[in-house]
Amino acid sequence: MTKTVLTISSKNYGSWSLRGWLLARLAGLEFTEKVIPLDDPAMRAEMLLLSSSILVPSLEHSGVKVWDTLAIAEYLHEIKPEAQLLPPDIKARAHCRAICGEMHSGFASLRSSLPMNLKAHFPGFKVWSRAQADIDRVLEIWKECLATYGGPYLFGKQPCMADAMYAPVVTRFLTYDVAIDKTSAAYCKRIMALPAMKEWVAEAKEEPEDIDELDAEF
Amino acid sequence: MTKTVLTISSKNYGSWSLRGWLLARLAGLEFTEKVIPLDDPAMRAEMLLLSSSILVPSLEHSGVKVWDTLAIAEYLHEIKPEAQLLPPDIKARAHCRAICGEMHSGFASLRSSLPMNLKAHFPGFKVWSRAQADIDRVLEIWKECLATYGGPYLFGKQPCMADAMYAPVVTRFLTYDVAIDKTSAAYCKRIMALPAMKEWVAEAKEEPEDIDELDAEF
Repeated sequence: MTKTVLTISSKNYGSWSLRGWLLARLAGLEFTEKVIPLDDPAMRAEMLLLSSSILVPSLEHSGVKVWDTLAIAEYLHEIKPEAQLLPPDIKARAHCRAICGEMHSGFASLRSSLPMNLKAHFPGFKVWSRAQADIDRVLEIWKECLATYGGPYLFGKQPCMADAMYAPVVTRFLTYDVAIDKTSAAYCKRIMALPAMKEWVAEAKEEPEDIDELDAEF
Repeated sequence: MTKTVLTISSKNYGSWSLRGWLLARLAGLEFTEKVIPLDDPAMRAEMLLLSSSILVPSLEHSGVKVWDTLAIAEYLHEIKPEAQLLPPDIKARAHCRAICGEMHSGFASLRSSLPMNLKAHFPGFKVWSRAQADIDRVLEIWKECLATYGGPYLFGKQPCMADAMYAPVVTRFLTYDVAIDKTSAAYCKRIMALPAMKEWVAEAKEEPEDIDELDAEF
């Protein structure tokens, strides 16, 4: 049997890596991590949004190599259906995929203005207007999901693909001290309390800071 | 029984609309089109890449409302499995989703520098370097798929989700006179020859030009 390997980048800065890792954990997959350092040229290009597309995280499992976070989620759902990464009801499942798709291709301003940075905290951070529109849309999505499916997670009683897709946004709201409503704040707290999230955040905080050199070049 | 409605925008400029429409056609879905004009403020924001996320195309079917092109594709695959929008083999299916995911979230330079414009033809158009990197990645993806699965479409004998996702890129290569290898050029020709593509392109060419006002404001 071949080893199952999840390739990721920085735990502090890699929002796509967090999504892929969290999905694998939620699916109950046993895997080995392979971490690509930030000074790897291809990784650097991805983190600086200079590459054509995002090739990390990627998963190798049973002779299948799959990259792109949504593709990994769908693959995990196929091999671990019992984990219910996607809701069992077809209507809820379509809704889940729709908001995951929004996160996957959209929110460019939120992404570039409030990059994930788990070690940091910026009280009083000023959100630029277009990123605020992104934040408003995220809160609208959460509100609708929590009201429709009854919480405490976006699609009901257990965290699913959508919670993993929005988890890096949760961390950004905390890092950049974003003003949000009480229901959303409670949701953020719930996500941060997931054992897998706590584990990832703890490891991110221990990560050596090798990104300074990278910043210096740009 | 409720009416099945696919909401789209411009047939000449709406690359996401083309993807959604083509997916619905490849799935063999019977649907009514609802076209949102380009002077609709929300539509305009999406076309100018100013909105948080892409909410058109969207599909209403049997009480389900689903937006985002990948979510629509997955939904169509669920309700019309016989259309094989996704390859039957799990490994090929993971590969298909991975390259669809790349198209969905990536290729920002290609998107902004070479916008879809089916009415136009720009011989000698100069491709800016970062868009060239995107083009190179697209060609690499096509080459690998055509070699692995034997063509004539990306995943074998019939067009699937991946062909629909890359179809707007095919039209851009033709519109902007992009220099590509023979195998890729033959693939482009094959996509343009699909009856659904011919129908869409013919309708795009008949579309009234209401985008001039829009340009004038920005």
